[in-house]
Amino acid sequence: MSRIAVIPGDGIGQEVIAEAQKVLAVALPGYESTEYDLGARLYNRTGEILPDSVLSELDEHDAILLGAIGDPSVPPGVLERGLLLKLRFEFDQYVNLRPSRLYPGASSPLADVKPGDIDFVVVREGTEGLYAGAGGNLHTGSPAEIATEESLNTRYGVERVVRDAFERARRRRGHLTMVHKTNVLVHAGGLWKRAFDDVAAEYADVTTEYQHVDAAAMFLVNRPHTFDVIVTDNLFGDILTDIAAAVTGGIGLAATGSINPDHTHPSTFEPVHGSAPDIAGQGVADPVAAISSTALLLEHLGRADAAIAVNAAVERELAGRESGTKIRTGEVGDRVAADVAGQLS
Amino acid sequence: MSRIAVIPGDGIGQEVIAEAQKVLAVALPGYESTEYDLGARLYNRTGEILPDSVLSELDEHDAILLGAIGDPSVPPGVLERGLLLKLRFEFDQYVNLRPSRLYPGASSPLADVKPGDIDFVVVREGTEGLYAGAGGNLHTGSPAEIATEESLNTRYGVERVVRDAFERARRRRGHLTMVHKTNVLVHAGGLWKRAFDDVAAEYADVTTEYQHVDAAAMFLVNRPHTFDVIVTDNLFGDILTDIAAAVTGGIGLAATGSINPDHTHPSTFEPVHGSAPDIAGQGVADPVAAISSTALLLEHLGRADAAIAVNAAVERELAGRESGTKIRTGEVGDRVAADVAGQLS
Ligand SMILES: CC(C)[C@H](C(=O)O)[C@@H](O)C(=O)O
Ligand SMILES: CC(C)[C@H](C(=O)O)[C@@H](O)C(=O)O
Repeated sequence: MSRIAVIPGDGIGQEVIAEAQKVLAVALPGYESTEYDLGARLYNRTGEILPDSVLSELDEHDAILLGAIGDPSVPPGVLERGLLLKLRFEFDQYVNLRPSRLYPGASSPLADVKPGDIDFVVVREGTEGLYAGAGGNLHTGSPAEIATEESLNTRYGVERVVRDAFERARRRRGHLTMVHKTNVLVHAGGLWKRAFDDVAAEYADVTTEYQHVDAAAMFLVNRPHTFDVIVTDNLFGDILTDIAAAVTGGIGLAATGSINPDHTHPSTFEPVHGSAPDIAGQGVADPVAAISSTALLLEHLGRADAAIAVNAAVERELAGRESGTKIRTGEVGDRVAADVAGQLS
Repeated sequence: MSRIAVIPGDGIGQEVIAEAQKVLAVALPGYESTEYDLGARLYNRTGEILPDSVLSELDEHDAILLGAIGDPSVPPGVLERGLLLKLRFEFDQYVNLRPSRLYPGASSPLADVKPGDIDFVVVREGTEGLYAGAGGNLHTGSPAEIATEESLNTRYGVERVVRDAFERARRRRGHLTMVHKTNVLVHAGGLWKRAFDDVAAEYADVTTEYQHVDAAAMFLVNRPHTFDVIVTDNLFGDILTDIAAAVTGGIGLAATGSINPDHTHPSTFEPVHGSAPDIAGQGVADPVAAISSTALLLEHLGRADAAIAVNAAVERELAGRESGTKIRTGEVGDRVAADVAGQLS
């Protein structure tokens, strides 16, 4: 029996996770879930973000389903670093996966693209680079202040995520683009390039390409259909995935997995959107991204068939929406769950 | 008399710079120019990129007009670091300026935008951050390899570019967005935030905003009209300016200045596009970006009236083009130069 830790979090996180769970109930029947009350409320009440005891308990689960974290009452960065990034580092979630598809019914800001034109995944490294937290300040707040921020990269860490990306490319359309800034960041870029070229030699069936991050950012806007799988470092991936979300209709529809492919610790799955306190509690938040994140979760747990069913149901849900009609959070979950149930019965 | 060093460079650099000089001839009558043969040809012939003697000579000029650098025969990064970045660092060109406008006649990949909707400038720091070259590798090429890349930031360096951005915002629509990633890059982000807030206190007439780089990248795609001036660090600026170029119709039209606002050394002005060896020598390269870079040069030299005239002529040139018609490099320069001459006479 799969054991899922559920962290609804703040704002609309609660609402969208309830719908994701409706879908999981039919896609992963009998799964056990434990709910963890983490996020702004816990922090404001107790000052705690992710107590060690909770971290240990989370570690007992097969996966974590997360809603959204954050509230204006908490200083920016505190919950992100203390919860989201801590999970990525503690649980060695080295593959940060972000599929980008332009769904029927979704509206892209780009002209001349139609559903199906955009379909790629970004494999972002999740445990290294500038996210390591290395760096410091001297003479803080004075005119003499200096600050450093250090990107830490290991062959071990880069090679494993590159390998994962090659595997995904092989299972998709067989094209992998590595993105970095090797012409300027020669030290980290050199390591990335060497690791990439070495692994590439083992995947003769995958065509490869290299792009500087500035060029890749541009191409995501003016020729997104040319991408299949992108592999890149932690910070570049952060930026590129948000561009990817933008061209496919906004972060409202995007889902992401912070994945430990070796299953040595649980992986986290979540919608990309935030807690949206302005619309929380009204039952109007779109749970589609949260539901899509269950598809990533199912795939990670080896339930490819159920994952496909969820994705198909999401696609139908979006295609069936009339533009301008208001969404009711609960109805979306009911519709998608029923669709998935029908497919899997 | 203004003294302009001209570095036509490689590929179409030669062709577009010839047109830029036609325009300069009427916009800055009597300017003196010295041509420097730098780039792939010099490098392949002599192994030299920017000899010290040439650097000293360049330093005697009021500004540098550069075409494009790079050729497939030269390993990636060599000329970029040895020439372009070296000029930025040696000549303390701390304001990397990239105006982004959607011109009439230019085709944006975005739906629902029309000329005039997009009009902002990015002020990118040019002498610090991850471009400092700090970092290293150990056990290179082995499974034990590690690589570091260090972002170096000083209050001195950040404050001066932030101040420049506030000045520009004040002369424009009075809105300045600072972009960083303060929730993750706490050391550098903290310094940037402190410097920004302190300088902001002196500019009560400028409204300010802060965005994380991932959000800013997204907003440049799905609401570019909301930006007036953006100030950001060297690497973020590199990425954001290419997104900006993409949404305004591609780097083919963008111009940039690597500016030393204190005039202690010359500033460099250039089109953003590359040397495009595939179309070089055919007289079909569009010189509009090179011509626009002369407008930035003129502004830097205090010739605001001439800069305005060049921009207006470029706008008319682009508006007057029928879509699908082939461009003849020389004719574009003639038309724009004639237009500028008419305006200034
Ligand atoms: C919330 C933040 C720390 C996080 C990141 O920068 O990775 C987010 O932007 C993301 O992409 O998951
Ligand atoms: C050529 C390269 C070194 C340069 C940079 O990264 O700054 C370019 O991309 C730019 O934006 O001017």
